Amino acid sequence: MQPTKKNKNVSTARWKHILSERVQQLPASEFDQIMRISKENKNVISLGPGEPDFDAPKPVIDYTAKMLEAGKTHYSSTSGLAELKEAIAKKLSKDNRVHVEDPQTEICVTAGSTEGLILGLMTIVDPGEEVFVPNPGFLAYTPMVDLVTGFAIQLPLVDTDGFQLHPEMIEEKCTEKTRALILNTPSNPTGTVLKKKVLEEIADVIVEKDLIVLSDEAYEKFVFGKEKHVSFASLNGMHEHTLTLQTMSKSYAMPGYRIGYIAGHHELIQEINRIHIYTSLAPSTANQYGALKALQLPTSYVEKMRNSYAKRRELMLKLIHQTQSLHLAKEPEGAFYMFPRITEGKTSQQYAHDVLNRAQVLVVPGNEFGNKGQGFVRMSYATQKEKIQEAFERMWEKGF
Amino acid sequence: MQPTKKNKNVSTARWKHILSERVQQLPASEFDQIMRISKENKNVISLGPGEPDFDAPKPVIDYTAKMLEAGKTHYSSTSGLAELKEAIAKKLSKDNRVHVEDPQTEICVTAGSTEGLILGLMTIVDPGEEVFVPNPGFLAYTPMVDLVTGFAIQLPLVDTDGFQLHPEMIEEKCTEKTRALILNTPSNPTGTVLKKKVLEEIADVIVEKDLIVLSDEAYEKFVFGKEKHVSFASLNGMHEHTLTLQTMSKSYAMPGYRIGYIAGHHELIQEINRIHIYTSLAPSTANQYGALKALQLPTSYVEKMRNSYAKRRELMLKLIHQTQSLHLAKEPEGAFYMFPRITEGKTSQQYAHDVLNRAQVLVVPGNEFGNKGQGFVRMSYATQKEKIQEAFERMWEKGF
Repeated sequence: MQPTKKNKNVSTARWKHILSERVQQLPASEFDQIMRISKENKNVISLGPGEPDFDAPKPVIDYTAKMLEAGKTHYSSTSGLAELKEAIAKKLSKDNRVHVEDPQTEICVTAGSTEGLILGLMTIVDPGEEVFVPNPGFLAYTPMVDLVTGFAIQLPLVDTDGFQLHPEMIEEKCTEKTRALILNTPSNPTGTVLKKKVLEEIADVIVEKDLIVLSDEAYEKFVFGKEKHVSFASLNGMHEHTLTLQTMSKSYAMPGYRIGYIAGHHELIQEINRIHIYTSLAPSTANQYGALKALQLPTSYVEKMRNSYAKRRELMLKLIHQTQSLHLAKEPEGAFYMFPRITEGKTSQQYAHDVLNRAQVLVVPGNEFGNKGQGFVRMSYATQKEKIQEAFERMWEKGF
Repeated sequence: MQPTKKNKNVSTARWKHILSERVQQLPASEFDQIMRISKENKNVISLGPGEPDFDAPKPVIDYTAKMLEAGKTHYSSTSGLAELKEAIAKKLSKDNRVHVEDPQTEICVTAGSTEGLILGLMTIVDPGEEVFVPNPGFLAYTPMVDLVTGFAIQLPLVDTDGFQLHPEMIEEKCTEKTRALILNTPSNPTGTVLKKKVLEEIADVIVEKDLIVLSDEAYEKFVFGKEKHVSFASLNGMHEHTLTLQTMSKSYAMPGYRIGYIAGHHELIQEINRIHIYTSLAPSTANQYGALKALQLPTSYVEKMRNSYAKRRELMLKLIHQTQSLHLAKEPEGAFYMFPRITEGKTSQQYAHDVLNRAQVLVVPGNEFGNKGQGFVRMSYATQKEKIQEAFERMWEKGF
């Protein structure tokens, strides 16, 4: 005679039946919760968020507003505004040595690179087919492969060699069912920048196995060490094997615009354009004009941010080396993240939880990025220098 | 010795291997081509497009620009801005008698209702499971079910009874594998508004079979006849069985904003919020503020558009009745479409092709909306009265 409890159980069983296996299998993510804490609790210093702390450039905002006022509130074509696709093609040629023959059939403008990635996966992967993902890697990769009912093959990365990707690993683990590799350089969460030589070795395996590389280059503008960013599609013969994913979110500090793009061989992009109507139709029209303006800005806008991140990176490196509870095996050269190992034998969750409660500093547990991230935390330096300094001082004060 | 041709064949075979079955199975759609023609060829009068010809309301544009200038260029929470979700809950209660207990866990803001629909399907449908779709129906429904590797069960609708949905049909065709029904009233492309009594009969079957209804209410504000729009979730007991999909695109003439939302039981919406990070993360932040302003506008904004559509509808009804090549079995009462039968025995494609070439008028072939749309064309009255009048005069002149 416990009707409420009984009903609750019945209801739960019902929802278990109704919800798809694919969503029930997804791992719990603390990403949204972390974003909320960092926005709501003003006492917490957040080294968590994955977005620039800069606002979008003023000329971008002004031009977006102007286009809204000019009545650009209607649908764009599903592949995006023609003039934006042309500007993207120029940018890819100039900045990335990626040559686009016909922007209208080889580029699709998407809601950030996120939407580009799910569109790319839908276009390539059938149920049960395999996709390589880096582990640790961006927390959405494996669930995205799961959502398209594919199977993610984890590529374990270790800190002692700076989380480098080894081509032999791809060769060894490749089966008849493997279709693609998600590549992410500079990397979220590790900050690793893959060397051109390594990418060329990977390219050899990609040709041998005839795979497609989904090259997530969200952080392309933020490379600080000796290495330069190399777009995978720029390597010899890789045009037919690569979908290049870039976004305005990080390079131009406009994540709230939700504008990215995917570029590649027209056989792939035409299919992506065709299915775009089934995921969101097209990105916001006025925001696409904003993106167009961003691509026309002098390079000084990006350079200024880059220089600021470079200084913060130097500071954070120094501070981590002074922190007894954290250890960096190699200095990360890109993105705006560091991924140090916890020296005390705590799990990522315990450490992040303790640091939040005792020092009021938010770091992201490393296991959010795959099981190989267990024992690590991600720290973002997309935060003012003063705040980074204070965060570490708070941690030291509490014995971390 | 025909290397070029041979290479081309090899390449085609390669792409056939690389592209997923799911995209290769999708039907060819002329939607994007139609949008392009209607925008590019200034001599053509388009009765094609599925979007309002009005611009977004000025207060919406002004507020969006203001929020951009205030630095609202960062990510929102994956479920959307808290204040927008609250405004949506109020709107649903006031306009639709749909009660939302906690806006923060029962609403997700999406990139139009399109994204809401694919998120809803991903959340409910596993590979091989079945979803009922109306035929003729919105051209994206069946491909979307295909994309989530579900199976679309067609519900054939006929013009002689005004394309009504018959509950017995659902009962008969339902199997162990059936999970959901996509409901669309007012309907694109037929303009049909389902009666409350019919919806209640459908609700009985939904309870009996424990299905989820994806209720696409994009055209909720545009009902012109005796019937009123009834939200499926407002019917007795349907809260646990319905995902309500609405959008700002049609009601507020802001399709280029790409803002819609999905509301329902928290067990479903929480999963949708969880997977949102894997499709687009969140909609444009500033555009969400624009949507918030739209929901705060006096009803006169929507009323003015509605009255304008009502007059155009009267005109188009009169003109179709005077057109020998077209026949309307029943007068459609909603959306901004008519779906007349072609009387001459031509296919939809032939007729649309002839009308475009000879009269320079664009209509959409009915088979774009499913095989039961063969022999019909869709005509949109989201066009100025003078243009509607001239389009028909052009057609009459050429003997249509």
